[in-house]
Amino acid sequence: MAKGFPTREEDYSQWYNEIVGRADLAEHSAVRGCMVIKPYGFSIWENMQAELDRMFKATGHTNAYFPLFVPKSLFEAEEKNAEGFAKECAVVTHYRLKTDENNKGKLIVDENAKLEEELIVRPTSEAIIWKTYKNWIQSYRDLPILVNQWANVVRWEMRTRLFLRTAEFLWQEGHTAHETKEEALEETKMILDIYAEFAEKYMAMPVIKGVKSESEKFAGAEETYCIEALMQDGKALQAGTSHFLGQNFAKAFDVKFTSKEGKLEYVWATSWGVSTRLMGALIMTHSDDNGLVLPPQLAPHQVAMVPIYKGEEQREKVVAELKKVKSELEKRGIRVKLDDRDTHKPGWKFAEYEFKGVPIRLAMGMRDLEAGTIEVARRDTMEKKSLDVHDLPNKVEHMLENIQENLYNKAVDRREENTHSVDSYEEFKEVLEKKGGFIYAHWDGTSETEEKIKQETKATIRCIPFEKAEEGKCMVSGKPSKQKVIFAKAY
Amino acid sequence: MAKGFPTREEDYSQWYNEIVGRADLAEHSAVRGCMVIKPYGFSIWENMQAELDRMFKATGHTNAYFPLFVPKSLFEAEEKNAEGFAKECAVVTHYRLKTDENNKGKLIVDENAKLEEELIVRPTSEAIIWKTYKNWIQSYRDLPILVNQWANVVRWEMRTRLFLRTAEFLWQEGHTAHETKEEALEETKMILDIYAEFAEKYMAMPVIKGVKSESEKFAGAEETYCIEALMQDGKALQAGTSHFLGQNFAKAFDVKFTSKEGKLEYVWATSWGVSTRLMGALIMTHSDDNGLVLPPQLAPHQVAMVPIYKGEEQREKVVAELKKVKSELEKRGIRVKLDDRDTHKPGWKFAEYEFKGVPIRLAMGMRDLEAGTIEVARRDTMEKKSLDVHDLPNKVEHMLENIQENLYNKAVDRREENTHSVDSYEEFKEVLEKKGGFIYAHWDGTSETEEKIKQETKATIRCIPFEKAEEGKCMVSGKPSKQKVIFAKAY
Repeated sequence: MAKGFPTREEDYSQWYNEIVGRADLAEHSAVRGCMVIKPYGFSIWENMQAELDRMFKATGHTNAYFPLFVPKSLFEAEEKNAEGFAKECAVVTHYRLKTDENNKGKLIVDENAKLEEELIVRPTSEAIIWKTYKNWIQSYRDLPILVNQWANVVRWEMRTRLFLRTAEFLWQEGHTAHETKEEALEETKMILDIYAEFAEKYMAMPVIKGVKSESEKFAGAEETYCIEALMQDGKALQAGTSHFLGQNFAKAFDVKFTSKEGKLEYVWATSWGVSTRLMGALIMTHSDDNGLVLPPQLAPHQVAMVPIYKGEEQREKVVAELKKVKSELEKRGIRVKLDDRDTHKPGWKFAEYEFKGVPIRLAMGMRDLEAGTIEVARRDTMEKKSLDVHDLPNKVEHMLENIQENLYNKAVDRREENTHSVDSYEEFKEVLEKKGGFIYAHWDGTSETEEKIKQETKATIRCIPFEKAEEGKCMVSGKPSKQKVIFAKAY
Repeated sequence: MAKGFPTREEDYSQWYNEIVGRADLAEHSAVRGCMVIKPYGFSIWENMQAELDRMFKATGHTNAYFPLFVPKSLFEAEEKNAEGFAKECAVVTHYRLKTDENNKGKLIVDENAKLEEELIVRPTSEAIIWKTYKNWIQSYRDLPILVNQWANVVRWEMRTRLFLRTAEFLWQEGHTAHETKEEALEETKMILDIYAEFAEKYMAMPVIKGVKSESEKFAGAEETYCIEALMQDGKALQAGTSHFLGQNFAKAFDVKFTSKEGKLEYVWATSWGVSTRLMGALIMTHSDDNGLVLPPQLAPHQVAMVPIYKGEEQREKVVAELKKVKSELEKRGIRVKLDDRDTHKPGWKFAEYEFKGVPIRLAMGMRDLEAGTIEVARRDTMEKKSLDVHDLPNKVEHMLENIQENLYNKAVDRREENTHSVDSYEEFKEVLEKKGGFIYAHWDGTSETEEKIKQETKATIRCIPFEKAEEGKCMVSGKPSKQKVIFAKAY
């Protein structure tokens, strides 16, 4: 266990904070609620971005950029959306500062530079984008529009946690426009599949696909589809959402198109997003009491190399050999960091790469060099062994695949162990309190029952899963239920 | 010449606006001064980003992310920097909206949610970043810090032009911290070299490297290095800047480090950036009276393919053959768009890709198919010829290189033709009025003379070029001058 570092058992929340800070992922900034994403953390986010961007483009989407600000009158056009975000809006009211006459060297807001209309810093971009789409769409020939944006958004939060809940965060938001309801629904589902594939294949994080209940859906959407993951502490995390917006925004912004049949119709819409919140999900899926654990697909360095030597002569020999090995590994597309700094000792480096979750660490000293061997340590299992250096690239490649798979399987096993199905409210409360995790239970479909459960237990409906339906009776009201839904306490 | 489209001769400014709009690069948004970057325009920016990002990383830089907001008290810490940007600051004063009791469905700013301290939307990030670096730097072992950020920034502008001057724009900003003045100066110069290489190799835009005069340098910098390009209308455009910040920000934020000798010293700094302004520079370097012209290195589609057919049977045959050709081209890493939409006629497509500046357009009909030929049209020279389809990949690859080179050479020639050297203020004014362009002239080094020239002629000193120095006398004051500097009217 790392020095001065709490175990997950001792204090999960503190453990999380320490990982984020000590693995150089992010830190709090001088601005309340806003984070600094540090270079190492940002590289992981860049790897996530690269894969998602590739997947979006492979399905016909292109990127664009829309303004950071939304004039208040546009923001309020789609009433439910506006209502949903009104309490979290950062508002720009002035456009100039001036020198404070009474306080040399200080600046004050220039009251003569008050905006006629306040600008909202985007909490999400449907309003400004649909205002724009109105000019882009006249006929069915202009559809579909399949656009994505990588951007920063601001939602004022009183209680913040790095990556999980911050006033400013980074995300991608897709905004598409379609001729028909069917096509928009298909898009909504296709994107959900992309999110699920990304979570499972790249993050090695199993997710459940489903639909949100009325009270949990996006403000302004007809339906919100989501992927839900289960963290190590038994709490759920919403990892991505894909919204079927119906014609709500088209109506709010009067966006109509002439159909193939010559009729004037409102456009159908979707929007969808994942954010830097995924960084939190990644940490709470794999990391352990020794620090961060990263799946090879997203690790900035898949392999870290540490030379062990005494004196400059040994150093040169060992580093020269490691450079050869590095070059062989890089030929296979493996991301390698050779740490040949002589300002830090090998032990320090071992601890550093272990804590930062580098999947494989290689170490070589003079004895290895002479014997043609190298020490290989796996971060996920903490196993160490000595391998023949000549056959290393194959072995490392294979091991990286194996680590990725192992992390995924471990996460699936953990989720299965922490997924329960209950038939009564008593049982529900007991399982929730003693075990946590995902709890499948029958629910009558009303917001009243949902609210009662939330008030009494703090558990919310994470989703109505797409999985097999099995009829029954609501655990609270006894009314008929078409299928069990998933409850959990959530981040 | 494209329909309803002014020539550059007729109205350069209107020509520019039409290109930006009709080639789907960008448009004005509902937010005063903020632009929407449309998918086609954004793809060009993405290509620019990819190359620059690769160059930054190859020289040891990593990306990170810092907050959008800067608390006013931090913003004002470096006085010159604060003073320089104070008049352009968008200010967040509130963090919540509420329902307007007197106006159902409308929202108003909640006066109870006034921030204790106003937040400035970053016009540049030195302040927030140096506040952060204070925590990252204790010893020489923590240096250098070589960080870059891709971000949006806001500088309130009254008169805006798409890409050239907008209230919000996208950019990259590098912020580095060093042990010594020499190292920081080296970094400043190295980055300027990267910018120049990028401009010349990828944008096919020749630039002059130099240093800004005292009055034109970045607020808070000791020295500002720049690359300056000459647009088709004889006006200059500052395409990138790299600042040596000395110890100004380290002192403002009290950032000291323990040196190898055990002394406590202030850290040395640089910052540097290029922005979406480069999109404007690209347009005004190569485009012509037929629309946009793009250098192959940055074109979203390097080749556009248009099938010509009558009826479905012909369409299938031609498209099948074009798909084969496409796949051959893509094997060479060439970006190809096959436009097989049957909602648009070939003539419409030809006009479209011509206006959008696609470097090479290929067209194939039944006669070509039977003869094994394909029509090839180059956008830069507007030449057309028929080529053997089997040898096409080689030819296209070679032609793309040739187009890139040709665009660069043409731009160099144009700049040379529009670069003048004068010896008297009379001659200066005459050349400026009749010809425009870059004008080399002797200047006495004082801000007074610089200001007088600006007031009388609207020309500014673009840079003191790194090129050969040749002593002389200031054209205005007659005082001694160490070298000619470059004057021009500028964007």
